[in-house]
Amino acid sequence: MKTETTIQGLTASLSPAKAARKIIGFVPTMGNLHEGHLNLVREARKLCDVVVVSIFVNPIQFGPNEDFDNYPRTLERDQQLLADVGCDIVFAPTVEQMYGNQPRLTNISVNNITDDLCGAQRPGHFDGVAVVVTKLFNMVQPNFAFFGQKDYQQLAVIRQFVRDLNIPLEVIGVPITRAADGLALSSRNGYLSPEHREIAPVIYQSLQTAAQQLTSGTALSDALNTIRATLTDAGFVVDYVEARSPELQKVDSFNQDVVLFVAAKIGKTRLIDNLQVKFTAS
Amino acid sequence: MKTETTIQGLTASLSPAKAARKIIGFVPTMGNLHEGHLNLVREARKLCDVVVVSIFVNPIQFGPNEDFDNYPRTLERDQQLLADVGCDIVFAPTVEQMYGNQPRLTNISVNNITDDLCGAQRPGHFDGVAVVVTKLFNMVQPNFAFFGQKDYQQLAVIRQFVRDLNIPLEVIGVPITRAADGLALSSRNGYLSPEHREIAPVIYQSLQTAAQQLTSGTALSDALNTIRATLTDAGFVVDYVEARSPELQKVDSFNQDVVLFVAAKIGKTRLIDNLQVKFTAS
Repeated sequence: MKTETTIQGLTASLSPAKAARKIIGFVPTMGNLHEGHLNLVREARKLCDVVVVSIFVNPIQFGPNEDFDNYPRTLERDQQLLADVGCDIVFAPTVEQMYGNQPRLTNISVNNITDDLCGAQRPGHFDGVAVVVTKLFNMVQPNFAFFGQKDYQQLAVIRQFVRDLNIPLEVIGVPITRAADGLALSSRNGYLSPEHREIAPVIYQSLQTAAQQLTSGTALSDALNTIRATLTDAGFVVDYVEARSPELQKVDSFNQDVVLFVAAKIGKTRLIDNLQVKFTAS
Repeated sequence: MKTETTIQGLTASLSPAKAARKIIGFVPTMGNLHEGHLNLVREARKLCDVVVVSIFVNPIQFGPNEDFDNYPRTLERDQQLLADVGCDIVFAPTVEQMYGNQPRLTNISVNNITDDLCGAQRPGHFDGVAVVVTKLFNMVQPNFAFFGQKDYQQLAVIRQFVRDLNIPLEVIGVPITRAADGLALSSRNGYLSPEHREIAPVIYQSLQTAAQQLTSGTALSDALNTIRATLTDAGFVVDYVEARSPELQKVDSFNQDVVLFVAAKIGKTRLIDNLQVKFTAS
């Protein structure tokens, strides 16, 4: 496994694979890797000849009150984990390598589907994601790019701009990796106290309960209210509990596939999760 | 020469060239071709193995009061002209082929350098250019893309987002093609009455005079005022006469290379032109 820190080095490392027209898989990350990330790499390994993982903590997707400076940087450990799952090239550029010295004047925005859910509290966040992911796509030029369904809204935003801009690659969404007790894996889980870690699986439990309710005929609004009540009773401060179509359009009732979304704080840690519920006309 | 009207057809036509790693040159146009466009194709022919020209009247770069519907469509004549200068592939998609049936939610904006000159009167115009050019770049994936310096601000905007987004190609700016009397070639020249056509070269003459004044020590503001007066005296209604750095930053005096910009109406026809003036420290 090679690690490249410059665009030039990355291009040189990819050049033989491109010349041989190998299938290139790409997994963009911000590092601090866990099993969820590693499963993205394992998926890429299955489908592709060459697997590239980027590790870049992207300043422009952090808000002014978000903690860019203290985001965990664990490159050596990440490199070891990536080597173990068969990554070929790690691309770990500096901020200067990514954004250069001259001011960036270009922005990419995706309307409508970024307005609510996590977008409501993070103005500009998805613009920052769209810009950095587009830049990385242009540097790596992969055939396939892999993203986790845990950040479902991010995945939907990326699918949208890839389609709207005809970016020549296929986006693969990979199902959420969960701990044995159901908690969705996240870098943020490390911030939980032992006590809060024990409560955290209630999020997934409440989503599963709601899914069962929906398939047995409970109204969508009632199912969402049950999630809210369950989380509040368990000690969470609910940020949002929402249902959307798989393409993130608003839905009023369970008459099509829906995705249930939760964002809730326990202590100081904000956790998100989601669950898709298939609709079968009876 | 092949003409392709679908993205799929374009991809199929380009596939052998890509497999053979040929150098691909791309000239995006809105059709209604004149010698200026043909010179772009000739430049591409010199540098590249395969030359692709797109002909697409892009609805999203027209404002609500601009005449998208009546923009001249002259595909057969354009095809003949392109065949004569050695174009390999014409890509002439429909609006539906380019934008599909589902709503486009993604926008690309370039700040600062789109605020004035032609941007001031055409809100959203350069966003529409950035989106369509990015889409076309992703469809063709050329090594080189050719744009005329006549639309200097457009060229600067394209250079900017290509750099900001790391789009893997080189943008080539091609000098303005002029009629024997100096008038910059433009689709719009066809709208001029014989009388106005006779006056139109005054734009370039006034730019040349200003360039001479600058190199012989006249203050920048005086040189710009001379252009304004000359054009007004000749019967133009001046939209703007401005000086900028080659990267479109504002300049106060002639102590670096500058580009002089003119937009002016004669009758109902708005003409633009520009001239770069090199600075040599004496």
